[in-house]
Amino acid sequence: MGGMKKPVVYVGIAELLTLEGAVGKSARRINESDLGAVAGGCLVERDGRVAWVGRERHLPREFKGARAARRVDLGGAAVIPAFVECHSHLAFAGSRALEFEQRCQGRSYREIASAGGGILSTMQATRAASKATLRASAQMRADAFARQGVATLEAKSGYALDAKGEIKILEALGGVRGPRIVRTFLGAHAVAPEASDAADHLREMAKLFPIIRRRKLAERVDAFVERGYFEPKLIEPYLREALKFGFGLTLHADQLTRCGGAELAVRLGAQSADHLVRITPADVKRLAASETTAVLLPTADLYMDCDYPDARALIEAGARVALATDLNPGSSPTFDLTLVGVLARARMKMTLAETIVAYTLGGAFALGLGHETGALVPGRSCDFAVVNGTWRDLFYAVGANTVRATCRAGEFIAGGGKSRA
Amino acid sequence: MGGMKKPVVYVGIAELLTLEGAVGKSARRINESDLGAVAGGCLVERDGRVAWVGRERHLPREFKGARAARRVDLGGAAVIPAFVECHSHLAFAGSRALEFEQRCQGRSYREIASAGGGILSTMQATRAASKATLRASAQMRADAFARQGVATLEAKSGYALDAKGEIKILEALGGVRGPRIVRTFLGAHAVAPEASDAADHLREMAKLFPIIRRRKLAERVDAFVERGYFEPKLIEPYLREALKFGFGLTLHADQLTRCGGAELAVRLGAQSADHLVRITPADVKRLAASETTAVLLPTADLYMDCDYPDARALIEAGARVALATDLNPGSSPTFDLTLVGVLARARMKMTLAETIVAYTLGGAFALGLGHETGALVPGRSCDFAVVNGTWRDLFYAVGANTVRATCRAGEFIAGGGKSRA
Repeated sequence: MGGMKKPVVYVGIAELLTLEGAVGKSARRINESDLGAVAGGCLVERDGRVAWVGRERHLPREFKGARAARRVDLGGAAVIPAFVECHSHLAFAGSRALEFEQRCQGRSYREIASAGGGILSTMQATRAASKATLRASAQMRADAFARQGVATLEAKSGYALDAKGEIKILEALGGVRGPRIVRTFLGAHAVAPEASDAADHLREMAKLFPIIRRRKLAERVDAFVERGYFEPKLIEPYLREALKFGFGLTLHADQLTRCGGAELAVRLGAQSADHLVRITPADVKRLAASETTAVLLPTADLYMDCDYPDARALIEAGARVALATDLNPGSSPTFDLTLVGVLARARMKMTLAETIVAYTLGGAFALGLGHETGALVPGRSCDFAVVNGTWRDLFYAVGANTVRATCRAGEFIAGGGKSRA
Repeated sequence: MGGMKKPVVYVGIAELLTLEGAVGKSARRINESDLGAVAGGCLVERDGRVAWVGRERHLPREFKGARAARRVDLGGAAVIPAFVECHSHLAFAGSRALEFEQRCQGRSYREIASAGGGILSTMQATRAASKATLRASAQMRADAFARQGVATLEAKSGYALDAKGEIKILEALGGVRGPRIVRTFLGAHAVAPEASDAADHLREMAKLFPIIRRRKLAERVDAFVERGYFEPKLIEPYLREALKFGFGLTLHADQLTRCGGAELAVRLGAQSADHLVRITPADVKRLAASETTAVLLPTADLYMDCDYPDARALIEAGARVALATDLNPGSSPTFDLTLVGVLARARMKMTLAETIVAYTLGGAFALGLGHETGALVPGRSCDFAVVNGTWRDLFYAVGANTVRATCRAGEFIAGGGKSRA
């Protein structure tokens, strides 16, 4: 153990969820027993990793007394794995509140987009914004996530749609502190007005792959697979090219129409297929048989006034499910995790245990981090949230954030009496 | 003007909503022009009342220079009438998160209630709680409302269901500071376990009317008019007795079944009929032809996983509509005004203008304060919210509270650099 830091021992944990059982099942077909609830729990962190977890009265001697750097009493709180927010459009400028009004009053997403609204409206504002402005607003949103227990946060580009602007967004995201940011290049969010057609736009965006890779500006590539945006046949070569560069893949799939996005995601071994409002029973089977995580975004369905995806069919077929906000200025202008969970429970009939695993280990798998975070078992990054009261009150009262502190790799990024690293 | 305080002049208001047009229409059939939007607005407060409102460049001489006590620059914010939350169960103890899980997993509200859950579960916890504990938790919730722009807040009893406990709750509510608290006696929330039947319970509760009246512990009386709780025929004499004591009436009406609550509310001249999920077209006509405000509570419908009431039918028939959270530990454990508004807009197709008026002037009418608050016109209580950015971003992004400060009768109760009165 030479060179290792001394461990930090967290005690006074009335309830601790390890999610050990969920780890064993790869976050599929979750029951409450998979949460690994420990009463009178104790968590030991060393070098940013979970060194030991269990009942406080079983704490091994090697972590006791002066062998520990510090002993932190959490005063009877609950401790859970930190949340993983695996689908967010964190960097953008401008507001689309007016479009929400138009949509509520009967205009379709497509109509609004055709009239210069939608993604292209945010694109104009984002192109015009400086990198510093984008970084500052993304930081504010990341802080709002961290206060809710998020230690890992996906963040997409996709609101500039030209080389200069997409690089600017990814660089701005690189400056965000607090949660672990997983950057995703979404150059294929919509066709830029400069492009002659979708194929032309994809050619331009694919030119960025080597630059992004070399400069480590993103780990993943995403595309809006949708009629009128990028249909499967058109986008497949672009995504295969991305795979050659070593990017992980994720797709906006089958949100507005059943267009084949989920099928494509599975075929290409994507980390996740997101939205899935319109998938078929065959798609459900494909996802269940794959390693592709099904990411459900019910606040987008609420704001778009459409149906929710069939979570129960996915779960019962054995698919791995994650939940996220889809934070973006158009179809889901919210970063409220509790609302996502309340919709999952009340409208999609997910159990609380399924909801918790979907927002932790499920999200981790969706980002290719299924063995790194999302559970409190030895060896993983020590990412946890300290919750007032009981974990059974999670995903219940919208507006009453019960998360007291958030820890990423042993460092508090919200609450906890320590400032952000 | 002898004895009057000097006026306070608020300037630097990029957008000011007076709701003057809505006042003229008694908050019915609202268009955007009824919001009375003023660019470059100015608001003058004297003795807690609106003394003048208009464009800053039209400010009369009598409010200029040393004639004003203070001139407060709001730095380009928007100012709107403070929100009126007209249906909340502010004082309770305990959590019903477990019941939410049971309901989401298929058990009905009635089944849970029959097994000792529901209102009676909260009753046990609330009876056991001290007045100080109830006051403290109610204060915390009132503060959460005030931070969202609420200056007038209805608060019901109804979670003790015995004489001692109901008085304790009303007294606890009397100690809450910040928003103007309108107290409502809801002894007829459920049948107490001690009562031999519903009629027996109502006899016990009616004995409190003179005490509550004499001690000014509540201004209004409410009842849960519902099959299995209090059916119209049974409750009518109780409500007529309440009217004799001078209480205003409000009813929980037609939420789970169409049981005749709205019809009864109109017949008795109630201030409001609340929920209205199951009303018939005839009920819509009755409400439209009456002075009874239709209070819609969409977060309860979300948490109960049922349909939303037909707001468009009510509005188009000419009914006056209000919105509220229904904050309570069972069917609507949220105090998030934005979520209420987003559901109203996305799912009930209310316009933003209708939503704003429903949460201000509509709520004021629901509480019998339709000529006292809910609009910024001379003579009314100077109750306003200071909003960052534009009012068009209201009821849009759940979790992003854009209210910077809340003023009740000229005193800041949240934000604004002044402490609570």
